[in-house]
Amino acid sequence: MVFWKKSNMLRTEITLGVDIGGTNTVFGYVDRKGRCLASATIPTNAHQSAELFFERLHERAEELLETIYEKCKLVGIGIGAPNANYYTRTIEHPPNLSWEYVNVLDEMDKYYNVPVATTNDANAAALGEMFFGIAQGMRDFIVITLGTGLGSGIVANGELIYGADGNAGEIGHTVVDPNGRECGCGRRGCLETYASATGICRTVQELICNTKEPSDLRCVSFEQLTSKIVYDAAQRGDRLALEAFDYTGKILGMKLAESVAYLSPEAIIFFGGLAAAGELIFKPTKQSMEEHLFAIFKNKVRLLPSGLVEGNTAVLGASALIWNDLEKGRQRPLSKKIINE
Amino acid sequence: MVFWKKSNMLRTEITLGVDIGGTNTVFGYVDRKGRCLASATIPTNAHQSAELFFERLHERAEELLETIYEKCKLVGIGIGAPNANYYTRTIEHPPNLSWEYVNVLDEMDKYYNVPVATTNDANAAALGEMFFGIAQGMRDFIVITLGTGLGSGIVANGELIYGADGNAGEIGHTVVDPNGRECGCGRRGCLETYASATGICRTVQELICNTKEPSDLRCVSFEQLTSKIVYDAAQRGDRLALEAFDYTGKILGMKLAESVAYLSPEAIIFFGGLAAAGELIFKPTKQSMEEHLFAIFKNKVRLLPSGLVEGNTAVLGASALIWNDLEKGRQRPLSKKIINE
Repeated sequence: MVFWKKSNMLRTEITLGVDIGGTNTVFGYVDRKGRCLASATIPTNAHQSAELFFERLHERAEELLETIYEKCKLVGIGIGAPNANYYTRTIEHPPNLSWEYVNVLDEMDKYYNVPVATTNDANAAALGEMFFGIAQGMRDFIVITLGTGLGSGIVANGELIYGADGNAGEIGHTVVDPNGRECGCGRRGCLETYASATGICRTVQELICNTKEPSDLRCVSFEQLTSKIVYDAAQRGDRLALEAFDYTGKILGMKLAESVAYLSPEAIIFFGGLAAAGELIFKPTKQSMEEHLFAIFKNKVRLLPSGLVEGNTAVLGASALIWNDLEKGRQRPLSKKIINE
Repeated sequence: MVFWKKSNMLRTEITLGVDIGGTNTVFGYVDRKGRCLASATIPTNAHQSAELFFERLHERAEELLETIYEKCKLVGIGIGAPNANYYTRTIEHPPNLSWEYVNVLDEMDKYYNVPVATTNDANAAALGEMFFGIAQGMRDFIVITLGTGLGSGIVANGELIYGADGNAGEIGHTVVDPNGRECGCGRRGCLETYASATGICRTVQELICNTKEPSDLRCVSFEQLTSKIVYDAAQRGDRLALEAFDYTGKILGMKLAESVAYLSPEAIIFFGGLAAAGELIFKPTKQSMEEHLFAIFKNKVRLLPSGLVEGNTAVLGASALIWNDLEKGRQRPLSKKIINE
């Protein structure tokens, strides 16, 4: 049954890592050392059916495989997608995708006969850091993805925490202020309405209305505003932009102090767009976190940037997801075909 | 090296479970099925030295062992104590005890030649529920101890979460209101200042001053007030007491909704004094938790009372701590004596 173990010593074992996004899907072949041997991007075309998507994905992945010079053996497929569940290997009501429900395992089984694992992008990122990035050797850490929203992947005792239903790690939906900003989840004041690419843009609007600070950002509409524009303004010394970063870090640090109380991680790792702002976001976050920490945790927890090579981060994460299953020798039903044989 | 395995089939393997409290220390011998064969209590006498305490504990434990009719073999010792650390097997700055620092392993090694494990009472309670109580068979759950303070023990993937430094699981020190009640930890608004035996007494005082509700509790000073008195008043229908329970549950439920977002547990188990108030505390907590839950978690997480037999709960928890180590075959340095041999 352990068919993924080296059956042919001449061939490099590789996994296919796939990151399904609202607009594009990135995929690539990754070996156990984290070398991405080849990668490509296709439009997700989420208005079309999921069946068609997986058909296109398989076609393009096969083409990509041809481009690899080394002799390879595909041993598994890891897929990161919004609302993808590790236990059920399904995608349910994904935001930004029109698919209602996708049984990923069924779709992949049409084309492949190898283990398949699915999870959301933040969990995949956490496993990517553990296998190939800055969390190598760590047993307790948290990855925070600061993109459009705020995602999180929690590792404790060297294992990703999926929880009873596969949905653990929703730190973005813990609450900063029950009367605060409206969140996409239908509630108010969730952390991700403050600490995310969208959150910092909302904060800029708040500062525009609440302060008299002169700023170039006053000339940009909310629709046009991006966290990159806020970052560029901050780099130019725009005080309102700088204040927006400070405010974001202050709130994020306050909530991360709670994450530490729960999990006492060795490190918290920042991943994704807004994290690229470096000290602009790290410094106020660290300061606020230390200020709010319960005494026994002070000056223990490191805030770190992602250690994954830019560009391939999502593919490495998705690949790590299935490498982790393979290494742990998970005897989950890996493929229906195999079970039915 | 696996010297705890059955070397003599005629003898019942037992562990010594010890719960060190500010006033009294309870200890007992527990077999793998959770039968407590004998238990006893000694005053902790924390004003005396820790050396003297462990000497007394050993003497009394030996006497107690004599009272057991079955042939037994002691295979390990589990100790629950305030601020006891699983990794270092030390107790540091325990609240309510005058001992500054105790190396528990060194102390026990003077008298015993078996594995020793230490942790705080909430973590021990979680393991107790997993081995002998209501969490048997669960892999993801949280135990909340509602005593003088609010402790918590988190189990994910079937393992207790100690975190990088052994201090994980301090849900009692996550913050309800940064400008709220002063906490013993030096900060303000920690959950345990609201949701605990002490917290409900503080809430009674707040309601006495903020409402005009007539209540018997207006005749009781804060020094005299206990959660038992509040409970008895609520049982009599005292509306201020009932409101205090509702308020406590409302805040606890709100924060437990965050716990669920982190960990997506199968159940949250209430343990300790205030938990005995039953529906008075369960009902408003459940209602508030559901109200505050992120949609994907609604109506999934059970709130349950402890499944451990009253009276021996702390001993069973401490015993489960060492049974867990033994079962997992942890190859930690179990005893310095053994290492030095």
